[in-house]
Amino acid sequence: MPTRVCFVFLCLALSLTACVFILLFHRNLGKSGLRVSCLGLGTWVTFGSQISDEMAENLMTIAYENGVNLFDTAEVYASGRAEITLGNIIKKKGWRRSSFVITTKIYWGGQAETERGLSRKHIIEGLRGSLSRLQLDYVDIVFANRNDVNSPMEEIVRAMTFVINQGMAMYWGTSRWSAMEIMEAYSVARQFNLIPPVCEQAEYHYFQRDKVEVQLPELYHKIGVGAMTWSPLACGLITGKYSDGVPECSRAAMKGYQWLKERVNSEEGRRQLAKIKELHLLADRLACTAAQLAIAWCLRSEGVSSVLLGVSNTDQLLENLGALRILSQMTPQTVAEIDALLGNKPHSKKESRA
Amino acid sequence: MPTRVCFVFLCLALSLTACVFILLFHRNLGKSGLRVSCLGLGTWVTFGSQISDEMAENLMTIAYENGVNLFDTAEVYASGRAEITLGNIIKKKGWRRSSFVITTKIYWGGQAETERGLSRKHIIEGLRGSLSRLQLDYVDIVFANRNDVNSPMEEIVRAMTFVINQGMAMYWGTSRWSAMEIMEAYSVARQFNLIPPVCEQAEYHYFQRDKVEVQLPELYHKIGVGAMTWSPLACGLITGKYSDGVPECSRAAMKGYQWLKERVNSEEGRRQLAKIKELHLLADRLACTAAQLAIAWCLRSEGVSSVLLGVSNTDQLLENLGALRILSQMTPQTVAEIDALLGNKPHSKKESRA
Amino acid sequence: MPTRVCFVFLCLALSLTACVFILLFHRNLGKSGLRVSCLGLGTWVTFGSQISDEMAENLMTIAYENGVNLFDTAEVYASGRAEITLGNIIKKKGWRRSSFVITTKIYWGGQAETERGLSRKHIIEGLRGSLSRLQLDYVDIVFANRNDVNSPMEEIVRAMTFVINQGMAMYWGTSRWSAMEIMEAYSVARQFNLIPPVCEQAEYHYFQRDKVEVQLPELYHKIGVGAMTWSPLACGLITGKYSDGVPECSRAAMKGYQWLKERVNSEEGRRQLAKIKELHLLADRLACTAAQLAIAWCLRSEGVSSVLLGVSNTDQLLENLGALRILSQMTPQTVAEIDALLGNKPHSKKESRA
Amino acid sequence: MPTRVCFVFLCLALSLTACVFILLFHRNLGKSGLRVSCLGLGTWVTFGSQISDEMAENLMTIAYENGVNLFDTAEVYASGRAEITLGNIIKKKGWRRSSFVITTKIYWGGQAETERGLSRKHIIEGLRGSLSRLQLDYVDIVFANRNDVNSPMEEIVRAMTFVINQGMAMYWGTSRWSAMEIMEAYSVARQFNLIPPVCEQAEYHYFQRDKVEVQLPELYHKIGVGAMTWSPLACGLITGKYSDGVPECSRAAMKGYQWLKERVNSEEGRRQLAKIKELHLLADRLACTAAQLAIAWCLRSEGVSSVLLGVSNTDQLLENLGALRILSQMTPQTVAEIDALLGNKPHSKKESRA
Repeated sequence: MPTRVCFVFLCLALSLTACVFILLFHRNLGKSGLRVSCLGLGTWVTFGSQISDEMAENLMTIAYENGVNLFDTAEVYASGRAEITLGNIIKKKGWRRSSFVITTKIYWGGQAETERGLSRKHIIEGLRGSLSRLQLDYVDIVFANRNDVNSPMEEIVRAMTFVINQGMAMYWGTSRWSAMEIMEAYSVARQFNLIPPVCEQAEYHYFQRDKVEVQLPELYHKIGVGAMTWSPLACGLITGKYSDGVPECSRAAMKGYQWLKERVNSEEGRRQLAKIKELHLLADRLACTAAQLAIAWCLRSEGVSSVLLGVSNTDQLLENLGALRILSQMTPQTVAEIDALLGNKPHSKKESRA
Repeated sequence: MPTRVCFVFLCLALSLTACVFILLFHRNLGKSGLRVSCLGLGTWVTFGSQISDEMAENLMTIAYENGVNLFDTAEVYASGRAEITLGNIIKKKGWRRSSFVITTKIYWGGQAETERGLSRKHIIEGLRGSLSRLQLDYVDIVFANRNDVNSPMEEIVRAMTFVINQGMAMYWGTSRWSAMEIMEAYSVARQFNLIPPVCEQAEYHYFQRDKVEVQLPELYHKIGVGAMTWSPLACGLITGKYSDGVPECSRAAMKGYQWLKERVNSEEGRRQLAKIKELHLLADRLACTAAQLAIAWCLRSEGVSSVLLGVSNTDQLLENLGALRILSQMTPQTVAEIDALLGNKPHSKKESRA
Repeated sequence: MPTRVCFVFLCLALSLTACVFILLFHRNLGKSGLRVSCLGLGTWVTFGSQISDEMAENLMTIAYENGVNLFDTAEVYASGRAEITLGNIIKKKGWRRSSFVITTKIYWGGQAETERGLSRKHIIEGLRGSLSRLQLDYVDIVFANRNDVNSPMEEIVRAMTFVINQGMAMYWGTSRWSAMEIMEAYSVARQFNLIPPVCEQAEYHYFQRDKVEVQLPELYHKIGVGAMTWSPLACGLITGKYSDGVPECSRAAMKGYQWLKERVNSEEGRRQLAKIKELHLLADRLACTAAQLAIAWCLRSEGVSSVLLGVSNTDQLLENLGALRILSQMTPQTVAEIDALLGNKPHSKKESRA
Repeated sequence: MPTRVCFVFLCLALSLTACVFILLFHRNLGKSGLRVSCLGLGTWVTFGSQISDEMAENLMTIAYENGVNLFDTAEVYASGRAEITLGNIIKKKGWRRSSFVITTKIYWGGQAETERGLSRKHIIEGLRGSLSRLQLDYVDIVFANRNDVNSPMEEIVRAMTFVINQGMAMYWGTSRWSAMEIMEAYSVARQFNLIPPVCEQAEYHYFQRDKVEVQLPELYHKIGVGAMTWSPLACGLITGKYSDGVPECSRAAMKGYQWLKERVNSEEGRRQLAKIKELHLLADRLACTAAQLAIAWCLRSEGVSSVLLGVSNTDQLLENLGALRILSQMTPQTVAEIDALLGNKPHSKKESRA
């Protein structure tokens, strides 16, 4: 596996390069002081479900030893088992608590009516449940896993401030909120002297660009909110896995992922697959894989603080981490070439007054 | 008793119907994010006093298993024994804390001068006592059981904010406060950046309408305060229990309930009993009991988040829960018919500028 | 006319008595610093309509010379003509602007949709119109003539603050608002650092007591709002004018006052007339007229800053002013006697914690 | 033209109908207290440019006499000549200032670098210029004609608050701002106790729905901002003017309207023209014109406070005003039929927590 060898070599042996590498590797989360690795390890679909706990431990170990300090989970992932697996591994490894960042997300915590949404009750009880499963005293960031239009923003921001003031979390963030909702949270925080969110988790890849490239940079400049993005490979679409249809063993063939299969087979899906083939050619030219190109492309976006990886084996993880190698090749020319190829570059606000 | 059988059947067996049922069953408490069942179980007069602890446990079990997630008590009920009974049952049943909502009320906590009212001292000490009796770390809502004109509003709202920030309660509310007093609490909360109340507990039934139908909706629209109502059967008056005078064994014959007896026997009381007879005929037509009609009628009011039931046996409870069955029959026509019969529909504010 | 002679004699000749008299005569408006005479002259129905401008001038002159410094009007009275008449008289008399208090009320200013209600536009334009008709640079108090549920409270309080900051008014007040609405105005003022209202104008007489005796004192103690009351004679009901039916020439026989006639002739109206006859006997015993007794009775209420008189001739005015003579006879015994007679003393909040 | 005759007849002759008409006709602008006619007269393209001043006066007269109280302009329209024409007509007609609402918009005020954008300097100087051209002391609403990303929001909101506190405007609003930008303005207003905006001007017609139907209602519920919409006929597209290509004399053939011509001739444009033909059939069925249907359809949206009409002759104006006649025919069925036909109904936020 030349890629992996090459990568480890790069990190550990060439001190000068490693230095540059490390500078590139960690970024402030938005305008907050928190330093996160620009690649994080997600646990969605995998931990406590698709993969064994042994594999989960291998993945975390490789990630951690390669400088990844960000591990993301949610109370809803595998009905809490993702958090349990993550917590067990952290405990077993004995890494210093101060050397990594754990984030979880609250919204769907159980079957009872009061165990869902963003009521003060569920934010507090939900996070307590997460901490219990994680065997931690606190997470670094607690996210609202989606907005809850039935809970007033003041209640949400007060509850997030409460769990931070109780020491149950260091920061709070939003996940899949609209720019307007994030601004409303900020507004309420300022109005009542509460703690504003530091980060939005958003889907971001070749075919989903508008929010991360246009709306979040605006929020970053105005209120300092950073972007932690997920699905850099569009659930595998980008790796070419579905180029010749949906294979039996893939995620798109899994129960509950009918929507993904439909997306692949739609007219729009076929157009996207054509573009993916061209991106594969470009990846070949840059001597990297399609996945590496896709991840490096996400990282080149100035508003992105960290990209969450979803992997189910160590090869995938090492390949994905290798995206950093080609980050320096994300020159304006290459980016422009990809933009031309995709044909979906969102218009940012014109700054001209004409 | 076909009603009860039918109801249980409806809840447990017909999944489709049950689904609709559950959608109707939970409501947000005012504009807060807290989801409460539209029927709650009160403990006034009953727990720790009129009924055995075994019966109390039966009632709570039936209620919980039928979707009721709201249990209301107060430090004053049976001099604290209502809380003790409630706490013992919760502990014994082992239900997840996040799956239900416990509310208690503070005002009369003991004989000492400092154990009554809404001083900061008594709010904090009183709630600590309640938590101890309930064997809980926190209640979901702590209510001020009445207003205390001798405690400044700032002190009350600061103390309520304190117990919430200490994690001893999730929310706070008022009980039997005037609209003006609630608005004052809100005003003080806004002025000093404290936490405003989310709910008012108010008496509501056929013969007590003005506050819940006129004043509280105005407060709901302005400041989001919801209504949790009690005495839907007017202490039994509505069931026809007193239609032929006050029986020996009834509540109105109990010590301390002389006022109820007097009310029943007053001229106004006789007029009300005549109306109750007509409501019984309407209930017959709708194939429900008078109590079910009265409870469904309370629930039809858009400002009502939850109606607290006061029952002393399981038959009563199941009958009362059956009120949900006829909620869909509370059509504008039926409501108008009841209004005509009662002849006491309060005037809401005219919106015209003429 | 012995009453008048006696009264003038009392004021001008007996310096010691006059001194006491003057102390009694002026009161602070609520907790504000503004000193108003405890009797004010209203212009409703009379100025610009029922009475000639000459009579209006006579009334104002007598009032002013007898120490009345408060003159109340509204943009809607006689479609603006009340303000024109009042303004002309003030200009003609040449009294120092600083020696009297002019109040007007805004709500109904014209036929256009934008000329009614409490929008910022109408509060500002309406008051400009009033000042123009009054030929004044400012009024002392501008009242919102009723609440406007279609205008947000923030807009109303901002506009009132604006006209005060522009120098168009010294203070602002409310007229016929509920206690809750006044508290909301105060809340908004505190929240946004705007100017709170100082006074509520409310109907107050033997048969309308609850608001002025229970609700407004509470507001006075909490937020300093004073009460300026009107209709001390219940539109003439109390003087015995209607004791033997509605005479042709009385207000109750006028077009648009059908409601008053109906009230007089209702069952409740007849009960009230019976009480009025007894009050006449009491007045005889106290050697005053029924009107004087009624006005003095209003003034004995500690929450009342000023009582507005509505008179259509000089005799009435002098008689009404004479009410001050018997204010000292409003002893607890007399007040209790009247309460017993009326049988409608409102319960104030119990202060006990029992 | 029976429509016009019928309409005028309806307004002026049938008093009962006219009464209903007027009730429907005025709406509060968002949650503000300002009452605007639901149809307003715009001056874009027309006043001071496309039409003679005589025609402009005829249009304003007809509009005003038919109950329209809202006239909208901007400093940029016809380089200020629209405001001059509007101001001359108002002066000549002598209508009471309080009987109508004038709105203007600031952004492009001149050639100098400091005469554009939303600097404090240009907001104040620009509005002074507008008031001078309009010969008015104040406008009712001053709009920011677009957002200016180079001016800090705090500066914009402070300047808007300044012009309101100076009496140069009653309210302020935004035009073509994103929901997030409007929320930011609100946030800044709350943080620094400044005055928040009351209204957003937005394009709204059959083919531009998302903002007015999804985003603005959310803002309305959260912060009370209302919608004043323009281009109900999509620059004439909807009337069928371009169904057979772009005629020489139409707006789409004018200099500077190349974009409109391109839009008409695009693939999307052709699809829209097909839908417009079907809407014409529906209009025939409802016995109204296609323009009337389109305007009534805009007005049926609950979030819309007022629709601005752009007309160049009196026939058009009277036809457009006739849209009110069919507003009662905008039943759920008809609206659903139009939605099915257009196939572009935007999704509002799902409220479910599932």
